[in-house]
Amino acid sequence: MTKPGTFVVHATDGNARRGTLSTAHGDIQTPIFMPVGTQGTVKSLSPQDLEEMNAQIILGNTYHLYLRPGDELVARRGGLHKFSNWNRPILTDSGGFQVFSLKGIRKLSEEGVEFRSYIDGSKHFFSPEKAIEIQMNLGSDIMMVLDECVGYGADRGYTEKSLEMTTRWAKRCRERYPAGSGDQLMFGIVQGGFFKDLRTRSAEQLCSLPFEGFAIGGLSVGESIPEMYEQVHHTAPLLPAEKPRYLMGVGTPLDLLEAVSAGVDMLDCVLPSRNARNGTLFTSQGKINIKKAAYKEDDSPLDPNCNCYTCRNFSKAYLRHLYMSKELLSYRLNTYHNLYFYLDLMQQVRDSIENGTFAQLKARYEDAYAA
Amino acid sequence: MTKPGTFVVHATDGNARRGTLSTAHGDIQTPIFMPVGTQGTVKSLSPQDLEEMNAQIILGNTYHLYLRPGDELVARRGGLHKFSNWNRPILTDSGGFQVFSLKGIRKLSEEGVEFRSYIDGSKHFFSPEKAIEIQMNLGSDIMMVLDECVGYGADRGYTEKSLEMTTRWAKRCRERYPAGSGDQLMFGIVQGGFFKDLRTRSAEQLCSLPFEGFAIGGLSVGESIPEMYEQVHHTAPLLPAEKPRYLMGVGTPLDLLEAVSAGVDMLDCVLPSRNARNGTLFTSQGKINIKKAAYKEDDSPLDPNCNCYTCRNFSKAYLRHLYMSKELLSYRLNTYHNLYFYLDLMQQVRDSIENGTFAQLKARYEDAYAA
Repeated sequence: MTKPGTFVVHATDGNARRGTLSTAHGDIQTPIFMPVGTQGTVKSLSPQDLEEMNAQIILGNTYHLYLRPGDELVARRGGLHKFSNWNRPILTDSGGFQVFSLKGIRKLSEEGVEFRSYIDGSKHFFSPEKAIEIQMNLGSDIMMVLDECVGYGADRGYTEKSLEMTTRWAKRCRERYPAGSGDQLMFGIVQGGFFKDLRTRSAEQLCSLPFEGFAIGGLSVGESIPEMYEQVHHTAPLLPAEKPRYLMGVGTPLDLLEAVSAGVDMLDCVLPSRNARNGTLFTSQGKINIKKAAYKEDDSPLDPNCNCYTCRNFSKAYLRHLYMSKELLSYRLNTYHNLYFYLDLMQQVRDSIENGTFAQLKARYEDAYAA
Repeated sequence: MTKPGTFVVHATDGNARRGTLSTAHGDIQTPIFMPVGTQGTVKSLSPQDLEEMNAQIILGNTYHLYLRPGDELVARRGGLHKFSNWNRPILTDSGGFQVFSLKGIRKLSEEGVEFRSYIDGSKHFFSPEKAIEIQMNLGSDIMMVLDECVGYGADRGYTEKSLEMTTRWAKRCRERYPAGSGDQLMFGIVQGGFFKDLRTRSAEQLCSLPFEGFAIGGLSVGESIPEMYEQVHHTAPLLPAEKPRYLMGVGTPLDLLEAVSAGVDMLDCVLPSRNARNGTLFTSQGKINIKKAAYKEDDSPLDPNCNCYTCRNFSKAYLRHLYMSKELLSYRLNTYHNLYFYLDLMQQVRDSIENGTFAQLKARYEDAYAA
């Protein structure tokens, strides 16, 4: 086994990078999209489905798993991999995003953040150390530091103070689990809102700390797409070239391609799975909504170029029927397709970087997804 | 291909029969339990799952499929098999049970039954001929006649009049699709409520008509278990030995065994799939409810004797977490297990009849499921 944390860049095409990141549960080929398994399950899919579609790594959510079933219970089961029967890599977020975006009443201080459970209203407290201890209990391959996600519209003064605290919290996280003290990796998270100089300062501060990778946080929080892209293109090059770069919580197929073009290696988002459950499906020809009357008698698959279980076996007419009937199989077949599409897109991205044709691939999807 | 409708009894053990029924989409080995796919899908499962667990035949629901997506739409898609990508046999009920049990306002006459859609309140009319025409559109392997299901507590006078009309309706169904006019089979349905002499009369009348099989209807409508068993034991022997016998809408594992002991060959019920979604799971040691706190930290599978995907891969602790978190995967893994358990039970039933050990098998489950 290659030492966890080893990151090798095999090829580049513009700023896009083709790499391999080693973790305790195996290597992941980057650029990579990571399906989100909030509560220890990627909604509606089995581990077998995810393996079948070549998901290399999935996310778990610290906030949710801490509240239910509890990270200590998971630790007693042998960790999240064993508990959920997923033997490939897992990345856990720090819970910061949920604490700051869900409506639990909260008190924020230098020490940490107090919040209320969305399940039963009970009070809880996350310090940076606690966020790491939970992730140690979960046994994820990649842990994320606790950060404050300031949200869109925060002023410069607040954003500046917040990013400084996020840096202090990042240090405390790293101290709780020093580099090399075990097989789990830890990524720092760059904040700084929508102020480029603050993003620069946050990146400089974070990158002086010994993390195995760096994330761009605080985006996709209500800003316009050009604003988001501007920050990604500004921030990605500030992160060390020899470490993996992870853009958190983004996005559409075009967002993925744009981020890769800026030098991002890893992405995650609930979009493909959530959209699937709402009937919005991604295809090589653009987005479609399966509830449209036009598909009532459409015997063709969602995407003639897709080789997933859904497209190989079912027509749009049947998928529309399942959706209109609110059948459980609808959520499952749609989710399967959308995640397969995202993972296949990233396989194409990796191939195109190796072949030096990434720009063409990006242009092709920009055309298919033109508004 | 053996001629559809051919039924061969290979072995008997007491009144229990081990047979093979040939249909246009292949043979089914009896006694058999048929998973219910009300709206053209067995809730939460894919056709691949059903094949994997050796489901030999599934049900479709005439009432539901007529209302949505419409039987004519299904016919234009090439029938229900092609529409839902299920290539093994399908049995469709006549819609009678739904019309009489769902709360659509209705008018009943000799001509047929008027009802309102549970979807949009629109008015519809099923005549016996119409019920068959819908099933012809669906292209099921086994069609059921339209019958009146009188419900528990109906008096003798009403029950008597009703069974006579059910017989007249059965004749009209058979006339609409005469025996041998195509590859679809048609089963008559014996009614007569909870009056044995009326059951006898209904059986005599129905069995004089050229159906390829006969069903016992109107049970599991609110009566006690002994009352239900009494009617099954009374009615099954009245049905021709050379034709398959189908007990509709029944039941628990013990009900299946009791029915088989009375000479029943086919059964269907929503119980295992509906119970699965409510967290009630069947095992070789009896029923369990996965939400119990006792399973919070239970690392063992649902059933150590079960070889299904759920039991081979997940602990009770994880299944409880999925259930408590209302995760979509919970419905799926639970449904997979319960249906696997039912189908496996029927495989054991078939083996035991061949080996002359059916009584021992029945006694073993009666012990495991003792109240």
